[in-house]
Amino acid sequence: MTRQELIDQINIKKSFLCVGLDTSIDKIPAHLQNHPDGIFEFNKQIIDATEDLCVAYKINTAFYEVLGARGWEIMERTVNYIPKEHFTIADAKRGDIGNTSAQYAQAFFETLNFNSITVAPYMGEDSVRPFLEFENKWAIVLGLTSNSGSADFEQQKIGDEFLYEKVLKTVSNWGSPDNLMFVIGATKASDFTTIRKIIPQHFLLVPGVGFQGGSLREVSKYGLNKDCGLLVNASRAIIYAGKTENFAEEARAIALQYQQEMSGYLANRPTD
Amino acid sequence: MTRQELIDQINIKKSFLCVGLDTSIDKIPAHLQNHPDGIFEFNKQIIDATEDLCVAYKINTAFYEVLGARGWEIMERTVNYIPKEHFTIADAKRGDIGNTSAQYAQAFFETLNFNSITVAPYMGEDSVRPFLEFENKWAIVLGLTSNSGSADFEQQKIGDEFLYEKVLKTVSNWGSPDNLMFVIGATKASDFTTIRKIIPQHFLLVPGVGFQGGSLREVSKYGLNKDCGLLVNASRAIIYAGKTENFAEEARAIALQYQQEMSGYLANRPTD
Repeated sequence: MTRQELIDQINIKKSFLCVGLDTSIDKIPAHLQNHPDGIFEFNKQIIDATEDLCVAYKINTAFYEVLGARGWEIMERTVNYIPKEHFTIADAKRGDIGNTSAQYAQAFFETLNFNSITVAPYMGEDSVRPFLEFENKWAIVLGLTSNSGSADFEQQKIGDEFLYEKVLKTVSNWGSPDNLMFVIGATKASDFTTIRKIIPQHFLLVPGVGFQGGSLREVSKYGLNKDCGLLVNASRAIIYAGKTENFAEEARAIALQYQQEMSGYLANRPTD
Repeated sequence: MTRQELIDQINIKKSFLCVGLDTSIDKIPAHLQNHPDGIFEFNKQIIDATEDLCVAYKINTAFYEVLGARGWEIMERTVNYIPKEHFTIADAKRGDIGNTSAQYAQAFFETLNFNSITVAPYMGEDSVRPFLEFENKWAIVLGLTSNSGSADFEQQKIGDEFLYEKVLKTVSNWGSPDNLMFVIGATKASDFTTIRKIIPQHFLLVPGVGFQGGSLREVSKYGLNKDCGLLVNASRAIIYAGKTENFAEEARAIALQYQQEMSGYLANRPTD
């Protein structure tokens, strides 16, 4: 998917919502826990119930890998089920030496046909570049994450800047706003001002809104740019909103709240 | 596997060799490229030919994920085929927020039954700790890697120390030498002296010997401790030593060279 196609979807749907499919067999409704294909059936109903309200789906690979080869197969069917106008994210946090990252890129961009993958920056340039070499595919590199552990290294000072600022500055030179996004944790909304000075144009994937305690208002206020420039993810807050056979409707109700709130912020976003 | 069991194997075999199964369909001998189960058959023959010469096998997950669900299934059969006295490493470079890292830990330690997994430290404590909570399982955290990109962030200064030194100091407090190792790139043998001051007891996984250009002599001179404390990996240098039907014998011949060289270094290792 191109940057413009993503922006068009955001404008059509008045939404920059990403729904995270962190689907776990012990958290889905009881009637699906006993279903022979319960996880895929759950994903399918969540997608059907939310597709007009969101522009992206994020699949957290860990929740599929825990099931072994069968999980990988469910992930494959899920990504194929997602409508083509949605931006698909493999939240896989991969990154290794060049020839290995090239294999990961092929795995997620070709074998699984995702639009994008999240990438860990620790190993540097040759670990990230292979993800930037596929047409209309995206690397979403970890910048500042929303977890408490972000204090341990990401927020350590290298000279007069934080490590995550160094990462944003350095990695943004390896790609362009057309094939590179960054993960920015929503619990640090005040940091968005600094971040937008470093990367004014890039899309930011914001994973922390919902159960991790971020504020959509703050993120939008400081993070939106003229092209929107944000994908805000909610996983558990949406997909586990309900515990009964009506779970998909309850998920939709929460997704609708996000979309309506986002619609207002989009209408008032910066014009330059 | 416990630390003592690993040390016992090293002493019995006079080897600290890890064989890396970075198996790629387009690099294995032609007769196996057309075999219906060629990758597993290749792995099986490599394991049969090298098991008495090495103490560990490392499976690079990228090379299996590129095949989709079938690759995951081949990985499962391969790890199950490895004899139980060998230390098994999922070279997966995982790491995410706590509840997701917990899923990865379960995926690799329980579903796939590896002894250990490589872990990326960028996201900090809560992204690493879930891998340290399984009895007799190991996290092998990235310290200093052997690729050119290690200069971008790992070798940037935080105060008066490199980021990778900060990582070694910080992460070593989260576990012990009984459940924690570090990845240390072999092309920086001179750095081992500094590294051994920070983590004198931990095992180090050294991935750079072989095609990446490290020196086994240098690594051994500066890295060995009284318990050995090293696992030196070679992947392509061993498994692709031969291109014919005799590939397993040729792989064995290279593995034997490593083992014989290692045997000499082990005999002269530090005694305290």
